[in-house]
Amino acid sequence: MIGKDVLGIREMSKEDLLEILDTAGEMKKILVGNKDSDILRGKTVVTIFFEPSTRTRLSFEMAAKYLGAHFGNIETKTSSVVKGESLIDTVRTIEKMKADVIVVRHNMSGAPHLMAKYLDASVINAGDGLNEHPTQALLDLMTIREKKGFFDGLKVVIVGDIVHSRVARSNIWGLQKLGAEVRLVGPATLLPKTFEKLGAKVYYDIDKAVDGVDVVMGLRIQLERQKNGLFPSKDEFSKYFGITEERMGLAKKDAILMHPGPINRNVELTSKAANATYSVIEEQVTNGVAVRMALLKILCERRKSNEISY
Amino acid sequence: MIGKDVLGIREMSKEDLLEILDTAGEMKKILVGNKDSDILRGKTVVTIFFEPSTRTRLSFEMAAKYLGAHFGNIETKTSSVVKGESLIDTVRTIEKMKADVIVVRHNMSGAPHLMAKYLDASVINAGDGLNEHPTQALLDLMTIREKKGFFDGLKVVIVGDIVHSRVARSNIWGLQKLGAEVRLVGPATLLPKTFEKLGAKVYYDIDKAVDGVDVVMGLRIQLERQKNGLFPSKDEFSKYFGITEERMGLAKKDAILMHPGPINRNVELTSKAANATYSVIEEQVTNGVAVRMALLKILCERRKSNEISY
Amino acid sequence: MIGKDVLGIREMSKEDLLEILDTAGEMKKILVGNKDSDILRGKTVVTIFFEPSTRTRLSFEMAAKYLGAHFGNIETKTSSVVKGESLIDTVRTIEKMKADVIVVRHNMSGAPHLMAKYLDASVINAGDGLNEHPTQALLDLMTIREKKGFFDGLKVVIVGDIVHSRVARSNIWGLQKLGAEVRLVGPATLLPKTFEKLGAKVYYDIDKAVDGVDVVMGLRIQLERQKNGLFPSKDEFSKYFGITEERMGLAKKDAILMHPGPINRNVELTSKAANATYSVIEEQVTNGVAVRMALLKILCERRKSNEISY
Repeated sequence: MIGKDVLGIREMSKEDLLEILDTAGEMKKILVGNKDSDILRGKTVVTIFFEPSTRTRLSFEMAAKYLGAHFGNIETKTSSVVKGESLIDTVRTIEKMKADVIVVRHNMSGAPHLMAKYLDASVINAGDGLNEHPTQALLDLMTIREKKGFFDGLKVVIVGDIVHSRVARSNIWGLQKLGAEVRLVGPATLLPKTFEKLGAKVYYDIDKAVDGVDVVMGLRIQLERQKNGLFPSKDEFSKYFGITEERMGLAKKDAILMHPGPINRNVELTSKAANATYSVIEEQVTNGVAVRMALLKILCERRKSNEISY
Repeated sequence: MIGKDVLGIREMSKEDLLEILDTAGEMKKILVGNKDSDILRGKTVVTIFFEPSTRTRLSFEMAAKYLGAHFGNIETKTSSVVKGESLIDTVRTIEKMKADVIVVRHNMSGAPHLMAKYLDASVINAGDGLNEHPTQALLDLMTIREKKGFFDGLKVVIVGDIVHSRVARSNIWGLQKLGAEVRLVGPATLLPKTFEKLGAKVYYDIDKAVDGVDVVMGLRIQLERQKNGLFPSKDEFSKYFGITEERMGLAKKDAILMHPGPINRNVELTSKAANATYSVIEEQVTNGVAVRMALLKILCERRKSNEISY
Repeated sequence: MIGKDVLGIREMSKEDLLEILDTAGEMKKILVGNKDSDILRGKTVVTIFFEPSTRTRLSFEMAAKYLGAHFGNIETKTSSVVKGESLIDTVRTIEKMKADVIVVRHNMSGAPHLMAKYLDASVINAGDGLNEHPTQALLDLMTIREKKGFFDGLKVVIVGDIVHSRVARSNIWGLQKLGAEVRLVGPATLLPKTFEKLGAKVYYDIDKAVDGVDVVMGLRIQLERQKNGLFPSKDEFSKYFGITEERMGLAKKDAILMHPGPINRNVELTSKAANATYSVIEEQVTNGVAVRMALLKILCERRKSNEISY
């Protein structure tokens, strides 16, 4: 059962995942409808991102506002974090201003888990280091379910820089829990064979990996990481691992193409592929808001039913 | 007829301008009244400014909030823009979070037009390069109409750095469409004779330019541009083109003084002139909110009647 | 009587202080209750901080939102302040967007007083230079009153960098007005004997200063100031003036420990002391929101009854 916090897909059951996806479906009706709800009236959601992000932060902000919650954001560059305050003190201070849900992104894996332990407020992990990015995986799962209708036996290939991707990790857990088969493909430096321990199948040849899949999921290449020597050049990457219309032709006829954004066009995928009818990249953005609305709703209801007070 | 977007004054008809000014008049009643309306309830307005601005951004924010809309702001310094995402992808992502209106400022002329082409959301140009700043011109027109009551045959002089001013360009279009006579005056380096092609009369002597006008409109001198050699020094500028009480004395008895702000006091205009009873500079700020409320209202109503969906 | 602005504790009467504390008590019921009020519906609160601060800014933001006000924030780094606009013009511009209350933090003592003089909007001082931080003192007073129930004859010691602390100054005024005895203790370089002129008793030995007090109030050591030679090292400070469990043992049995945050753990106070049951540091944060709600309510009501218009 979903508890106080949403820290990772790894600790969720299949039932948790389906509950969230069902709720997200309901929330989407509000989102594409009148965007005028007071489900979270009087609740307070605060985002604090220790890594820059616009799209995820704005997505949470809109999710909170569409449900009528109070919303606040802490800019960590100007915050007391720079004055030497401890992480725990920072978030407990936010809580004491009566935040019900604190949404955290942090460059250190496990930071949201540490915070959650010291908070009565609910914590949502909006990405922690190389560990998890559960709300991204949930929106991916929601999009797959909308487009495919089933997970059992579904073949999904994740392409790119797997080792640095918390999106990949969260999706590997989530897809497998729901019965899908996960393939991983990327340069050997960015995809150690040890990933098979997670239950996924590892490929180094994209054409073989894409063969017959239902879903092709690109990942963002973080060009700012290229200095560490593990990375192929942009040209090499796009030549050997870029998702092209031709490569999409190797997947199933009705396969879909996904990407968490922001896209480096003509690196991870060609502009043509990104714009093709099989691309569901923009639907993912909308579903991101729906999934975050669902989590906020579920957590606030849990708090109420548990009569959590702080 | 006002369409999906508000990109420039140039493409508006006289009727469009009057419709906006009439609506702004209604909106001003809310603004100076109880500031409590739900006209835009369930609508979403997002600002994204690629050039720094506080006053224009806050003015749009307040306009949206006073009408009950959801509001979000993207800081471009921390956004995925820096991660290499394309402009179009950035704004389409905002749209897919269900933004109804996206307000854009960009240092490149034409950027909002490009975005508008790729968006179902409405776009408002909050200033693009050296092209237009339509909401500034609209608030200027509203202020002139409030104070003067007519445009036909009205004499307006715009003073300063004309060539770098999108405010001047938008005002030249707007004033002429409404029947006013526009004079331009400034240093020859900042006011090529070719501006006469726009229908305005070009002067290089401020005393002659101001003679007998109804409205004197200063422009901000962007001191940060002084390095390019086109600019007189601050002292030279204020000596030859600064608006003083004496120079205001050359205009009509009931002439008004305007400035888009922020003011460099004792450069573009003396502090005494800025504070005189003929100065309507602060009323312009209030009217800026009213005009932006009007545009948000008109665009959202158009969207509804056209049943635009995305 | 509380007037248009809240600039400092120095100019308040005992009755003013008690009125605010009483109102803050009412506001706290909303704050720990459903956080859903429309007391300030249609009112506009704008924060403008010329010094970075997260906790105070967020506290005002939440106070405004919990009471249903419109809220806006000006980031001074990106604002027209950097474009050379005068301080007065900047805040008058905010006012002309129909702000009812402008909350200011500024590194210069007296800046909010200057602004208030030129504004019809109400100004709240959120910290000005080395002068005052009235809302911090008010939340401290509220917390003391909640925990102790009385001020008359209450012994309070303020520990640390007194000379650079606007928090200390505001508390000295406030505590004495309410009848408490104030002791000050810190390194001689940071606590000139002249502070006795304010009516407080100056100590240089913490053990003597803490002896028999009801309240121990730590202050933040601003480590960024250490370069100026006045400061002991962190280790020296914590050895000679750090608040430890042992030193708390010298105070009264039921003494409480306060700190305005953010804490430098194991510098101003040991982590054990900060976490002990006598520590009310986190309650102070909650009371900070309540006190700010109270000030916003009181000022907006005053505006209404005075029919202030602008």
